[in-house]
Amino acid sequence: MSAHQTSTTEETLDPHDWEEIRALGRQMLDDMIEYLRTVRERPVWQPLPQDLHRHFERPLPRTPRPLGDVYAEFKEKVLPYPTGNIHPRFWGWVMGNGTITGMLAEMLAAGFNPNQGGLVQSGNLVESQVISWCKEMFGFPPSASGLLVSGGSMANLVALTVARNNRAGYNVREEGVGSAPRPLRIYASTEVHSSVHKAVEILGLGCKGLRLVGVNQDLTMNLDLLKSAIREDREKGLLPICVVGCAGTVNTGATDALDALADLCKEEGLWFHVDGAFGALAALSPELRHLVKGMERADSLAFDMHKWMYMPYEVGCTLLRDADVHRQAFSLTPHYLERTTRGIAGTELWFSDYGVQLSRGFRALKVWMSIQENGIDKFGRLIRQNVEQARYLERLVTSARELELVAAVPLNIVCFRYVGSLTDAGAIDTLNKELLLRLHESGIAAPSNTVIQGKYALRVCITNHRSTKEDLALLVQEVLRIGKTLTT
Amino acid sequence: MSAHQTSTTEETLDPHDWEEIRALGRQMLDDMIEYLRTVRERPVWQPLPQDLHRHFERPLPRTPRPLGDVYAEFKEKVLPYPTGNIHPRFWGWVMGNGTITGMLAEMLAAGFNPNQGGLVQSGNLVESQVISWCKEMFGFPPSASGLLVSGGSMANLVALTVARNNRAGYNVREEGVGSAPRPLRIYASTEVHSSVHKAVEILGLGCKGLRLVGVNQDLTMNLDLLKSAIREDREKGLLPICVVGCAGTVNTGATDALDALADLCKEEGLWFHVDGAFGALAALSPELRHLVKGMERADSLAFDMHKWMYMPYEVGCTLLRDADVHRQAFSLTPHYLERTTRGIAGTELWFSDYGVQLSRGFRALKVWMSIQENGIDKFGRLIRQNVEQARYLERLVTSARELELVAAVPLNIVCFRYVGSLTDAGAIDTLNKELLLRLHESGIAAPSNTVIQGKYALRVCITNHRSTKEDLALLVQEVLRIGKTLTT
Repeated sequence: MSAHQTSTTEETLDPHDWEEIRALGRQMLDDMIEYLRTVRERPVWQPLPQDLHRHFERPLPRTPRPLGDVYAEFKEKVLPYPTGNIHPRFWGWVMGNGTITGMLAEMLAAGFNPNQGGLVQSGNLVESQVISWCKEMFGFPPSASGLLVSGGSMANLVALTVARNNRAGYNVREEGVGSAPRPLRIYASTEVHSSVHKAVEILGLGCKGLRLVGVNQDLTMNLDLLKSAIREDREKGLLPICVVGCAGTVNTGATDALDALADLCKEEGLWFHVDGAFGALAALSPELRHLVKGMERADSLAFDMHKWMYMPYEVGCTLLRDADVHRQAFSLTPHYLERTTRGIAGTELWFSDYGVQLSRGFRALKVWMSIQENGIDKFGRLIRQNVEQARYLERLVTSARELELVAAVPLNIVCFRYVGSLTDAGAIDTLNKELLLRLHESGIAAPSNTVIQGKYALRVCITNHRSTKEDLALLVQEVLRIGKTLTT
Repeated sequence: MSAHQTSTTEETLDPHDWEEIRALGRQMLDDMIEYLRTVRERPVWQPLPQDLHRHFERPLPRTPRPLGDVYAEFKEKVLPYPTGNIHPRFWGWVMGNGTITGMLAEMLAAGFNPNQGGLVQSGNLVESQVISWCKEMFGFPPSASGLLVSGGSMANLVALTVARNNRAGYNVREEGVGSAPRPLRIYASTEVHSSVHKAVEILGLGCKGLRLVGVNQDLTMNLDLLKSAIREDREKGLLPICVVGCAGTVNTGATDALDALADLCKEEGLWFHVDGAFGALAALSPELRHLVKGMERADSLAFDMHKWMYMPYEVGCTLLRDADVHRQAFSLTPHYLERTTRGIAGTELWFSDYGVQLSRGFRALKVWMSIQENGIDKFGRLIRQNVEQARYLERLVTSARELELVAAVPLNIVCFRYVGSLTDAGAIDTLNKELLLRLHESGIAAPSNTVIQGKYALRVCITNHRSTKEDLALLVQEVLRIGKTLTT
């Protein structure tokens, strides 16, 4: 039988005409490269036209339509209305931009389409190498384990599952949380990210299983309050199991005293997890590394590469100091997943043993290609550049008498607001809310917003490889202009 | 300030030379299309060369390297060693192949790089439309909600989190599982997928919170055993909350009596979840739809598009009948995620309110483009084609006296083994284990393996848009050849 013979009655999703789809693919590639090359010329963001929602309400298509037409619809109805995060003047929430290399790597990954759940195939070697590189980046030992996940939320969930199962003192996998002789407690500062709340709830510990500890003036965890909380809980018959330290809080970029937390966890016999979603990446810059000192002593570390490593969505990572403990939390081997001595299943390394997912995509490839193309030192320089840009913005803010800096700037986040001659707290909040919306609608710049100790603030989080200081100067100029308009 | 002005001292990850990367991108695209066009000419899978592991042990690169060189390494060291699932004769585990359209869509998605966590941007309209289409596909009401997730494991975890929180009878999010007045119980057949075990463990219910119910001869859940298990548990003071029905078990493709399960759950006041990872997709074929009747009555449904819709990894989906209940299980709105009345955050639809992830990639795009390009009816035909191929293989197996069919073939999975003249059970197992490894190593075909009622079996799961009946005939021919070699 010839390898080329196929039945005439059997259908496939492969193209009839390979040259036609190649030509269309080239057009898509050219368009996307041009779209990204010219991103600075377009607004950061624009509102959706009224009728766009209706456009996306057509029912399930039953019959085929040429891919070129579908692509034309994508260009007309999707491409003009981005989130904004690809733009040099987007600084909302915590988002990366993506890169051309990341885009090309995603294409290669989807075509090659390996299942990274396990099995004997080259993709697993790529992911293993990326995890080894992550250990190097953060000073974790070679014996540590790791897993690429969809992002920081999953990275925290995976790490806290391991922490729960390892420190509860009995077989949680078998018995469940309901069998705990003493209620389990996890500690984090009031500034901890919502994904930690979500993880604790999913794990069945309940919101009340997460005790929030007050912060110092610099918005880092107050260790005296932590110590007394632990003591108090032990006296009440609860079982403290874990402390979550923040490497870069989402609000202001504050980093808890990680070395002191590591000491305390060691003394108290607690699991030490660090949520370093973006802040952990400061370790890549020799000039910033001291900010996250102590992070390398964590039992587990969660961080994101689609934030401050600028990769396209999705890719986050969890590192675990103890690979066995990591595996014990997730490993399951039913008959249909049994390992063999040779053949496709002939390996002991199954990433599905280290997390939630069984089938897993090749998110490792974009990281592997990007780190090689740029060298990790360049990521360190870009991260430092973003921090210097934040300091530059801080200077611009503090030197403009209409503006108020609302929080310290320890890293890459600047929270400030327009005050002008206003004195009423409510009026200042109202003004800044409207100011932010006008800024978004202008398409010129996109910070997000938060509340710091009761004050509504514009929040500029610089995890953007396309931003320049000039972009930040333009932001301040526009804030002053809009603020003035709104107060006169 | 000109939009084109950039500081000379500031770095970026954007290319210096856009034409150079465009040329390289075109090369990558051409190579991948050619790689997929010629996939049938290559072995399904091949062992990794001895020294390949060592190749991937180089430490973290500090300095840059031309992207073309990195890509050359990908071509030489990665591309020749796939999982195998892209090949027409791969039928291991449950995997899709991916498609050219899926590959191109992933490129577009990564370049556009929206954050699908929420916000006002076109990507959310695309995902909403895909979810609406999924409701149509499976007969869920327009008022239902849904979420695209990384795959079946997450789809089950999301659904079971909602089930737990909704049916525990108290505020689980606040109080945790440890505060349950009565231990919570979930029911599923002994054939249920391991991802359900994993989800139940993560949720803090413990393995013992999942009661496995025995199966009938056809490997579907025995409803009498289920009823008595529920009664017995209630008498013991446990709280039954949920039944998981299987639409297509991983071992054999058996589908529980879903209509009867829906009735029973209604009577008993239990949440009815269906794990339809691949089997749910049978609903797309008018000829097969009856197999999953009752699924449309589920409170929640988990299924995968990277399996029997052939999309590249990763994309799965959870549908929830009650959108409010869905949202109540996950919604969290800290200050830094506050919705605004206008601007980028001016929407009530935040997908992060419906699952674990906050930042989310644009996995919706490949589904949106593929369904439009092909029309959903074509997916139904391809699914039916795979089922007919399974029946064809069943006939080949039952008509070869050396082979034994080990389980019924209700859907797309055929479990069989070579017996020849052997009679000793252990010897038959040993023979088939070796036979499978030789089959893998031959590169001709790749089933996986399982154990059905004590019998080791080759397991052929056809979720492959590239397979033909001739491919299956070749499989049987090779199994007979290797079996004969091993027994003479």
